[in-house]
Amino acid sequence: MDHMRLEMRVSVITLAVPDVTAAVRFYRQAFGWEPDFVAEGEVAFYDMGGIVLSLWSGLARELGRELPPPGAVTLAYNTRSPQEVDAVFAQALAAGATVASPARTQEWGGYSGHIADPHGHLWEIAYNPDWPLDEEGRVRPEW
Amino acid sequence: MDHMRLEMRVSVITLAVPDVTAAVRFYRQAFGWEPDFVAEGEVAFYDMGGIVLSLWSGLARELGRELPPPGAVTLAYNTRSPQEVDAVFAQALAAGATVASPARTQEWGGYSGHIADPHGHLWEIAYNPDWPLDEEGRVRPEW
Repeated sequence: MDHMRLEMRVSVITLAVPDVTAAVRFYRQAFGWEPDFVAEGEVAFYDMGGIVLSLWSGLARELGRELPPPGAVTLAYNTRSPQEVDAVFAQALAAGATVASPARTQEWGGYSGHIADPHGHLWEIAYNPDWPLDEEGRVRPEW
Repeated sequence: MDHMRLEMRVSVITLAVPDVTAAVRFYRQAFGWEPDFVAEGEVAFYDMGGIVLSLWSGLARELGRELPPPGAVTLAYNTRSPQEVDAVFAQALAAGATVASPARTQEWGGYSGHIADPHGHLWEIAYNPDWPLDEEGRVRPEW
């Protein structure tokens, strides 16, 4: 049987959030992000340049079951310096995030930590000197 | 106080998986994906063109706590046709995925459903006629 190879990409990252309005407010204050589309109380979409970040209140309904709490998936925002990690931490905590793992020097050579948004979704804020960012902010590791 | 606006991007998507080897095997069979880097039993990285998908066994240790089961976050792979949704479903199920929501015509005009990988991580496989894909496979919605 022919084996199909999917393209190496993700199209949408959806964070299940009971309160879309609160989530939009958090990401505005924490990261300075404005959604490109909002259906009030239902969904908010952020265009991340070829990938869409979605905050959606309808996942439990779609799947027909209660959802577990977040925590088994993390999203990372990689920075251009260790100082930027601390600055993002500070702004996110002021916006209502909590510390999931403190920012610290890591054995792999970087500086990173995790915050949890008010719904519990995890963001790693990371400076990784081995994974440079290009002008568009895309990570360009050399494998 | 100055408000910092982060760039609109995600650098890394990490799926916490107890068994990295099994996860790599699943994504090879289900999606045809080969990791760009593997530290056996520890982590596997997939270069998604500016974003890295990571399968990592160390998140619980890093956070110092047990993780909840996956299910509060979904990743979507958007296709170029409804038929492709069914084909991805079939190949993923043959590789050990389970159906989290059957593929069906959606009220928003597309055709989509969810599969769960063997660890429970959710993938939406979606055809969305309103969100075209460019040549590189990036979603290009008009908001």
